Amino acid sequence: MAPRNRQFRLAARPVGIPRRADWNFTEETLCEPAEEEFLVKILYISLDPAMRPWMNDVESYVPPVQIGEVMRALGAGRVVASKHPNFQPGDYVTGVFGVQEYAISNGERATKVEPSRASLPVYLSTLGMTGMTAYFGLLEVGQPKPGETVVVSGAAGAVGSVAGQIAKIKRCRVVGIAGGSGKCRYITEELGFDAAIDYKQGKVGQALAQQCPDGIDVYFDNVGGELLDEVLLQINLHARIVICGAISQYNNTAPVKGPANYLLLLIRRARMEGMLVTDFISRYREAAHEMTGWMAQGKLKGREDIFSGLETFPEVFLKLFTGENNGKLILKVAEE
Amino acid sequence: MAPRNRQFRLAARPVGIPRRADWNFTEETLCEPAEEEFLVKILYISLDPAMRPWMNDVESYVPPVQIGEVMRALGAGRVVASKHPNFQPGDYVTGVFGVQEYAISNGERATKVEPSRASLPVYLSTLGMTGMTAYFGLLEVGQPKPGETVVVSGAAGAVGSVAGQIAKIKRCRVVGIAGGSGKCRYITEELGFDAAIDYKQGKVGQALAQQCPDGIDVYFDNVGGELLDEVLLQINLHARIVICGAISQYNNTAPVKGPANYLLLLIRRARMEGMLVTDFISRYREAAHEMTGWMAQGKLKGREDIFSGLETFPEVFLKLFTGENNGKLILKVAEE
Repeated sequence: MAPRNRQFRLAARPVGIPRRADWNFTEETLCEPAEEEFLVKILYISLDPAMRPWMNDVESYVPPVQIGEVMRALGAGRVVASKHPNFQPGDYVTGVFGVQEYAISNGERATKVEPSRASLPVYLSTLGMTGMTAYFGLLEVGQPKPGETVVVSGAAGAVGSVAGQIAKIKRCRVVGIAGGSGKCRYITEELGFDAAIDYKQGKVGQALAQQCPDGIDVYFDNVGGELLDEVLLQINLHARIVICGAISQYNNTAPVKGPANYLLLLIRRARMEGMLVTDFISRYREAAHEMTGWMAQGKLKGREDIFSGLETFPEVFLKLFTGENNGKLILKVAEE
Repeated sequence: MAPRNRQFRLAARPVGIPRRADWNFTEETLCEPAEEEFLVKILYISLDPAMRPWMNDVESYVPPVQIGEVMRALGAGRVVASKHPNFQPGDYVTGVFGVQEYAISNGERATKVEPSRASLPVYLSTLGMTGMTAYFGLLEVGQPKPGETVVVSGAAGAVGSVAGQIAKIKRCRVVGIAGGSGKCRYITEELGFDAAIDYKQGKVGQALAQQCPDGIDVYFDNVGGELLDEVLLQINLHARIVICGAISQYNNTAPVKGPANYLLLLIRRARMEGMLVTDFISRYREAAHEMTGWMAQGKLKGREDIFSGLETFPEVFLKLFTGENNGKLILKVAEE
């Protein structure tokens, strides 16, 4: 029997939180790689908040996933067949492989990795797009200076936790906003954040004032919505707000809530700037080198929250939006 | 009889559009200047949109005008008495003199000007804070490059008209948004803008798409509100949005409308940044020198809309918000 490939395909544009009916779980015969292509057996799939806006019929920095198309996702796997000169069977790779068991790749934006140096889940998190997003977002757009106060939202999340730790390495005061006492303890006790604010307790503005007595110089925003407005009220002169994401808005059925306090940008002569990690692709190696060093020194810690079974994708994906995941959310699809 | 001074003092915090009852028109005996002070007879008062937020009880880049205080305003006048070593009777000066007939100054932020070189109204407009705001906001924050498309809102206004002309001088395609066909003709026919969009005709998004076929690289925003959202949808990669003001929001009784499309900053990796002219005070001379040159070459034109009579201040001020003024709004208080 020819080998089979199972996939999650977008069945309908979700309204609000994606439901199971928004997906088709399909199965098809596995294709052979053509010349200059290789076949990857996917082992881990990276689940990221950005996947939710890709499901909308809106032109963004990437085209929307089309109805019937395999859902776009990053993943890590092992090359099992190849007609590509640079990739051999047995090579481990990361790339945009989709929510499926196998993928054909022409090598574009696929990267060979060394599981002897770091585990595949780490290559999807701290040493992958997640970590790169934190690194370049914080350092290039946020431009923190020693002694400044950096606030990070989604601080226990995959990107936020790395951004906060890098800000500590750069000798800033770092305040994380996260949901729940467990996550707050994690970022202060395990990751060394100076303070944590549990947004589920409310009164975020008061808590920010207390934890940021010198005001806020850099805000690394993964969340948007009301938190962004609360932070704007307390930014310092020449503050930098890094717009990395807005997870609070991704399942909105109402229009996005724009930051009503944006005129604080004028009052404080501050800057709000969006970032996308792929703009820094030529510098990934440099960043990975530096972050590997920090990890070896124990200054930078990651945490992966790994669930198993491709068929659980629709439910596991939602943990990003309910805040149930602890660290980088990853779906394990097959044994290494 | 001792000379008298008449003043407009803030009587109440306005809700929405300021009403006559929000002002007290008072009269008092004129004081003598003390040591290191001088007395100015005010000839012209600059009326600026920013004065409206100064009337709110909100800490901003300057303290709010207090109830009972003389309304804060820039002005130009003649020194009539002095105990200050650097200012002599007969000198012409600009400064923050308030909405009144006479002011006492210690010289702080007062500048001597030469009416033989440019008229006093021009020193309040193109060669004053207005022009400086346009110059530094556009060039330093907007950073337009030749061939880029620059959109200016409030384009027939005092700041916007200068910003647009400077963008033309810098060899950009310049599209102005203004209210009404007269203003639109003015900016294209008199000031050389490449195109004008009359927001009162509606369909601003369509008009922007038509007039900015290569997208928008710089947006110089004086208006905020829905125009900002329309522009955001059409910004280019790495666009710069200069937040200079938000006149559409200044008389709001509802909360400020935040830009719901702010996530385009992420999608297009763009920047939104506030500016305040006083940050560039050390470079005013350089800017004035350059702008004087452009004026002499006919590349930069100003227009002042001058009304007379201090007592008309409450009504004339409102022209800024109804859009009735044509160019820089100035109140003439006394004959030169």
